[in-house]
Amino acid sequence: MAHDHRSHEGADKLYDLIDDIRICMMTTVEEDGRLASRPMYGLEADQAGDLWFFTQVESSKTTEISREGHVNLAYSHPSKQHYISLSGRAEIVRDKGYIQDKWSEPLRTWFPEGKDDPQLALIRVHPERGEFWDSPSSTVVHL
Amino acid sequence: MAHDHRSHEGADKLYDLIDDIRICMMTTVEEDGRLASRPMYGLEADQAGDLWFFTQVESSKTTEISREGHVNLAYSHPSKQHYISLSGRAEIVRDKGYIQDKWSEPLRTWFPEGKDDPQLALIRVHPERGEFWDSPSSTVVHL
Repeated sequence: MAHDHRSHEGADKLYDLIDDIRICMMTTVEEDGRLASRPMYGLEADQAGDLWFFTQVESSKTTEISREGHVNLAYSHPSKQHYISLSGRAEIVRDKGYIQDKWSEPLRTWFPEGKDDPQLALIRVHPERGEFWDSPSSTVVHL
Repeated sequence: MAHDHRSHEGADKLYDLIDDIRICMMTTVEEDGRLASRPMYGLEADQAGDLWFFTQVESSKTTEISREGHVNLAYSHPSKQHYISLSGRAEIVRDKGYIQDKWSEPLRTWFPEGKDDPQLALIRVHPERGEFWDSPSSTVVHL
């Protein structure tokens, strides 16, 4: 769909693009090899470039991530024709310090029990490769 | 992010939603297990419910599909808060009859050589499971 060229300078732009979209489709690998995705609201990237998401600890995606850490984060902004793919490794974080630190009240929309819910956990994604399409070209970024 | 409930009646709605979005992020599995995605313009679903995409025959995604047919198609419409996940199996189709039949001139935007380009091929995705989120709930559809 687009011509690829390589760049080592695109990381800032890539993070700006995903910050503008925030909700991505997170794809994980099921036990039988099927690929499942679901919308996930992303917090701000941390200084290391890792991406964080709140989740219920008991869910199909946390099971899949615990068994097989590969994920893809796909961000789409159709009206701007911006598309971003991030390939990386994910882990489940249950540390209360991180949960307190990352929590903000608007998240109650999805987690009505709030930050003290014992079922609340974080998914941390360490991106390994990013690619973005801001029509008509695409850029590959090694992260 | 949303509560799931099961439905056998949602398939029509799911196809309406994806028809409204058209460009999805197609995720495939790389040889090392990484998950890669890229934007793909979808043609109309056929009568069997299979989804079709034009591609260059020599590309990383066709290599990945030929080795490992599992794909995920993720459709996002942020302003409407519509998100759709389709899990399925993909295959590469090089049959000239299908290519002639599916081709339309607006596709030259992405395939300037047109329908007689020997590098042109189709990806056919046979969906096995669909799920959509039209906030605040989600619906799982077995296809």
